[in-house]
Amino acid sequence: MTEFLDKLKWDKNNLVAVIVQHVDTGEVLMQAFADRAALNETMQTGLATFYSRSRGGRWCKGETSGHFIQVLKVFTDCDRDSLIYLSDPIGPACHTGARTCWFKEVELSAPAAGAEPAVHTEGDHTHGEHVPRTTLLALEATIAARREALKQPSDGSKPSWTARLLSNPELLCKKVREEAGELCQTLEASEGRERAASEMADLLYHAMVLCNLQGVSMEEVLRVLRQRERQSGLEEKAARAPKPAA
Amino acid sequence: MTEFLDKLKWDKNNLVAVIVQHVDTGEVLMQAFADRAALNETMQTGLATFYSRSRGGRWCKGETSGHFIQVLKVFTDCDRDSLIYLSDPIGPACHTGARTCWFKEVELSAPAAGAEPAVHTEGDHTHGEHVPRTTLLALEATIAARREALKQPSDGSKPSWTARLLSNPELLCKKVREEAGELCQTLEASEGRERAASEMADLLYHAMVLCNLQGVSMEEVLRVLRQRERQSGLEEKAARAPKPAA
Ligand SMILES: [Zn+2]
Ligand SMILES: [Zn+2]
Ligand SMILES: [Zn+2]
Ligand SMILES: [Zn+2]
Ligand SMILES: [Zn+2]
Ligand SMILES: [Zn+2]
Ligand SMILES: [Zn+2]
Ligand SMILES: [Zn+2]
Ligand SMILES: [Zn+2]
Repeated sequence: MTEFLDKLKWDKNNLVAVIVQHVDTGEVLMQAFADRAALNETMQTGLATFYSRSRGGRWCKGETSGHFIQVLKVFTDCDRDSLIYLSDPIGPACHTGARTCWFKEVELSAPAAGAEPAVHTEGDHTHGEHVPRTTLLALEATIAARREALKQPSDGSKPSWTARLLSNPELLCKKVREEAGELCQTLEASEGRERAASEMADLLYHAMVLCNLQGVSMEEVLRVLRQRERQSGLEEKAARAPKPAA
Repeated sequence: MTEFLDKLKWDKNNLVAVIVQHVDTGEVLMQAFADRAALNETMQTGLATFYSRSRGGRWCKGETSGHFIQVLKVFTDCDRDSLIYLSDPIGPACHTGARTCWFKEVELSAPAAGAEPAVHTEGDHTHGEHVPRTTLLALEATIAARREALKQPSDGSKPSWTARLLSNPELLCKKVREEAGELCQTLEASEGRERAASEMADLLYHAMVLCNLQGVSMEEVLRVLRQRERQSGLEEKAARAPKPAA
């Protein structure tokens, strides 16, 4: 532990940068700094602890708000001046009450040739947030926006495929079963990698629409998977460990 | 644009911190700094550009290695001293050739009460990397490790469920279809949110095993979803835009 701390590249204020990342969703939640004491405490308590330059001292996130951040794993970067706390947060990470500290999007002025223009979906604007969404979370937000839009009177335009699925559970279930079959088919008929990726995307999307209808978020699904993985990891460890002497 | 730059909280070296995140997988790829010129260039070219303190100047990532990073969206944090470049990287982000700069894991010495102990799977060690893996990527790595292990002679221990699925495509396809049906069932029979989350987890896991068998990564699947989302976003925009005058 001391050895590890000695190897870090502390800046002239004796700090390293710390990025807090959500273990299930991958969201970057906050960025702060840690000194030796803060890092030591994080490792020992499993709760994200930092050094506050403004307060001039150690600061355990959540000690006043109750919004602690449980740190599951710690990683250091190639030149050892920046850490990632891979974490399971209790409540919002930002002092403003936002889930993550990054909630303002900068509009890229002139999309360059080859660069993708920033396509804002309804959803981004209706709930007033511009957070960095990875593909899975962006798709989930789009589905949620389509569902919100269904509550408004129709503007007469042709409903999107997602809207049709959301308003027809029978069609949706038929599609989920069908897409599962098509994914299996790619293996059974050796249809190739590209087709398999495309069918997996189909299945995932339709299953996510079904989850939305039931109020289930991908975060919850991923949490279930993490807890199972942890359980099976522990069981495997136990099975392989030499029997205790007594 | 100038207005936005004026609002940022530049440090005494006239820099802001920049975190580069992979849009599809959510991986935190690298951390660096940007001055006004670098940020301007990033916004205009759509390629991640930084200020290098060691070189003392502007630095477009990839200009020597070819490993450019395409920046799709830019976000700023609550106190405007840190940016996220939500990105699609071309090749590895780290100068060492690693996918991400964080590839060293710190073993949490004494797991605290309530904290989850660090459970290392085979996979983490066989390919020699300790990268921060979110739940989806961790599950994918576990499945890959089970597949690797199948290439070794059996040690006589009972094979894991994943190993059984991997070595029996018929069983695997049967399970994928079955799990899709069980997920639909949660909606059809109103089995409740918790059950829906659990069945979605079942389906996702089994479908990921099937993807592994075909050499398809979740990154590829997510890329397909992003490209479709972009396409449908553009189509919707076009459909809603007033017809051009000429
Ligand atoms: Zn570094
Ligand atoms: Zn904040
Ligand atoms: Zn916008
Ligand atoms: Zn939001
Ligand atoms: Zn399909
Ligand atoms: Zn900040
Ligand atoms: Zn690096
Ligand atoms: Zn280890
Ligand atoms: Zn099931």
